[in-house]
Amino acid sequence: MSNGIPPRFDLPIPDRADIITDNVLKLAEATPNPRLRFIFQTLIKHLHGFVNETDLTTEEWMAAIQFLTRVGQTHTSFRPEMNTLSSVLGVSALVDALNNPVEGNATESTLLGPFYTDDTAHIANGEGIASEGKGEYMYVEGQVVTTEGVPIPGAIIDTWESDSDGFYDMQFSNRSHPDCRGRLQCANDGSFGFRAVVPAPYPIPGDGPVSELLLAMNRHNMRPSHLHIMVEAPGYHKLVTAFFPEGCKYIQSDSVFGIKKSLIVKLEHIDDEGETRKRGFPAGASFELMRLRIVMLTNEQFKSYRAKNAESKRTA
Amino acid sequence: MSNGIPPRFDLPIPDRADIITDNVLKLAEATPNPRLRFIFQTLIKHLHGFVNETDLTTEEWMAAIQFLTRVGQTHTSFRPEMNTLSSVLGVSALVDALNNPVEGNATESTLLGPFYTDDTAHIANGEGIASEGKGEYMYVEGQVVTTEGVPIPGAIIDTWESDSDGFYDMQFSNRSHPDCRGRLQCANDGSFGFRAVVPAPYPIPGDGPVSELLLAMNRHNMRPSHLHIMVEAPGYHKLVTAFFPEGCKYIQSDSVFGIKKSLIVKLEHIDDEGETRKRGFPAGASFELMRLRIVMLTNEQFKSYRAKNAESKRTA
Repeated sequence: MSNGIPPRFDLPIPDRADIITDNVLKLAEATPNPRLRFIFQTLIKHLHGFVNETDLTTEEWMAAIQFLTRVGQTHTSFRPEMNTLSSVLGVSALVDALNNPVEGNATESTLLGPFYTDDTAHIANGEGIASEGKGEYMYVEGQVVTTEGVPIPGAIIDTWESDSDGFYDMQFSNRSHPDCRGRLQCANDGSFGFRAVVPAPYPIPGDGPVSELLLAMNRHNMRPSHLHIMVEAPGYHKLVTAFFPEGCKYIQSDSVFGIKKSLIVKLEHIDDEGETRKRGFPAGASFELMRLRIVMLTNEQFKSYRAKNAESKRTA
Repeated sequence: MSNGIPPRFDLPIPDRADIITDNVLKLAEATPNPRLRFIFQTLIKHLHGFVNETDLTTEEWMAAIQFLTRVGQTHTSFRPEMNTLSSVLGVSALVDALNNPVEGNATESTLLGPFYTDDTAHIANGEGIASEGKGEYMYVEGQVVTTEGVPIPGAIIDTWESDSDGFYDMQFSNRSHPDCRGRLQCANDGSFGFRAVVPAPYPIPGDGPVSELLLAMNRHNMRPSHLHIMVEAPGYHKLVTAFFPEGCKYIQSDSVFGIKKSLIVKLEHIDDEGETRKRGFPAGASFELMRLRIVMLTNEQFKSYRAKNAESKRTA
């Protein structure tokens, strides 16, 4: 089925490598949307640059096409292989860094990751997100504030994490209900707290095309242990981040480049009976305490940082 | 499942955009295969360059990931959407141009395309490849020779083409046998001939993700009419090419950049009764004559051109 767009007659027959590239670029000039036009032209320039600089062989390009096809065909909503490819190549982290610039004391963002679900347990402030047996007890508590330190009342926190074996609930084929995830509303003074478990490091999938890429690169496929936190409050820029307990073996080498210094937190071991009881853990138990101070940007602050970031790139 | 490769501890925590890119590049240094290492590093450089220069938004990157995933999921062996994406971006033609350099009078190569099949009709030199009703009669005749003009005896020619509606046999769901395609052996003097039909221009698929890309670019999706020819002879570099009858509306704007000046041929209209009968067409019919001279490179010539090409790129 022809798309009905008339041919152009002003381009030379693409006899040579450089004419091919020129023609593709000139055709992209006709893209009506100016932003898409710029994206297509930049993409073509880099794609052809890659092929030219590597003097890529036909066999290598066929292997690349087959690889990308396999990534697409492995991809499902529960196992987003194309996102994983983007992640291990550092592109997701780069996009996040460009899109979520932070200034001053605001909490830094990081990757959403594939394990966020809309289906989650709504809990009251102070309750638990993990069922019994999911791992060592952890209590997460803190406050959501503005960059001036003013409490933000009633922010909604979404949190999700792996169990102590490194699995998210959706990785169990017999999952009957959400576990190790929850949604709660902060108090009027911005404070929040919930019972959880100490998360564990875990691998990104070890059996698909992306895992073969990592093997070819001799790179490990582990992520350091972390607790995901997403915070929303009217008037504030939605924060997607995660916190990484200090001391994890993989903290220096996150396979998807999703860690930042400011997101590393020290857990405090608590075995005081009163503290344990106060937080609703069983009598005689001890727990790890994760204390967080979450500093949100207003929508205006975020817009101004994003514009400044874009401007500094244009003038770089 | 962890892949068991130990973490590296000498890279900084990827706090900033530039550290992310540096870390991905440094990790790629550990790729054991030196060719793959170079390919990965060049790929990362261009991929991150693309994201940086476009200051790509999260939404744009998600759209790109979804697009590539859809391309992968649309891809089948009969409809290789990922190859089509590569083709419309000019990458397939560029790879072909880099890998099949030609010097002097040798016949130029072009894209194999998705319509080659192993399943074909073996015909005797002089017979026909198209069943009755497939289009206007065409006779293809010529000689396969060396760059010095010496006939190459017994070369094997594979040929395939669209019918006069622009369809290849495999695009008919009721295909019961190969049509408009055949394999024949040249005579000892390198000569060959076969009955065929005049091919028609045709669209690349107008209903998938790649077609949406072309619409966004305001680019048509047509290929000029052509006859595919693949020639093999012991000691000679396998030639994958196609010939484009002069005068096609799309000859100046092949949507996959697969046309070259030297591959455009003038058809000669023949209505001489004797010529028609000699070639086995029905009495009273006329036909178009496509005359070809196919000049093949020896394996040694090809290797030396390819090496020279690679060398000139390295020193460019």
